[in-house]
Amino acid sequence: MSTIFTKIINGEIPSYKVAEDEHFFAFLDINPNTRGHTLCVPKQEVNKLFDLDKDTYEGLMRFSYKVAKAIERSVPCDRIGMAVIGLEVPHVHVHLIPINEMKDMTFQHKTPVPAEEMKALAEQIQQNL
Amino acid sequence: MSTIFTKIINGEIPSYKVAEDEHFFAFLDINPNTRGHTLCVPKQEVNKLFDLDKDTYEGLMRFSYKVAKAIERSVPCDRIGMAVIGLEVPHVHVHLIPINEMKDMTFQHKTPVPAEEMKALAEQIQQNL
Repeated sequence: MSTIFTKIINGEIPSYKVAEDEHFFAFLDINPNTRGHTLCVPKQEVNKLFDLDKDTYEGLMRFSYKVAKAIERSVPCDRIGMAVIGLEVPHVHVHLIPINEMKDMTFQHKTPVPAEEMKALAEQIQQNL
Repeated sequence: MSTIFTKIINGEIPSYKVAEDEHFFAFLDINPNTRGHTLCVPKQEVNKLFDLDKDTYEGLMRFSYKVAKAIERSVPCDRIGMAVIGLEVPHVHVHLIPINEMKDMTFQHKTPVPAEEMKALAEQIQQNL
């Protein structure tokens, strides 16, 4: 059975898409730590980051760099934090999170963002790629 | 004034060193979330991850992959988590953390590790590079 992220990549589940290329896909986290919290995912379904083959890992990190720069140009923040944890969805995902303080990185404080604003955010990040 | 990490890289402050090459340095976090928690640092002093030039960023990620694989071979865990936050020390550092549950990634639960065990851990990770 495919993961929820594969369903998002295939368009079976809607998402606020931010970027896509042949091997990777980025979209807004639906339960964001902060406004602009984005997930970068390889199209290949692999559970753990360091089980990715070296090329896919490096490609994912390059892709994440590009997306992070676009988020930085779109959302006022001190910096973009990065995290890869993956204990919930068994499909590698890089969290890119606009942060100002440590609590923005603990995944214990969430920021509800209305649908209209999610849409506008995704469009703005896309334009800043 | 140089950052605490530059002082560690230069040997002015002792550390449990794990790996080093021309551009990067890895050592055990002295206040670890879990046993084996390691920091990977570019020798170049840059505050924010996405302010690194592309080559240094990609080099740091390649270096971190190698170190993560060695930690994985040295410390029993579900997987190696990765985080880049950087709000405390203005010198890019990639956290590589052996994790089993979400609390291992929140930086709110620390695991004191005796000096002897830190030394043994660093040696074991080095050997598994």
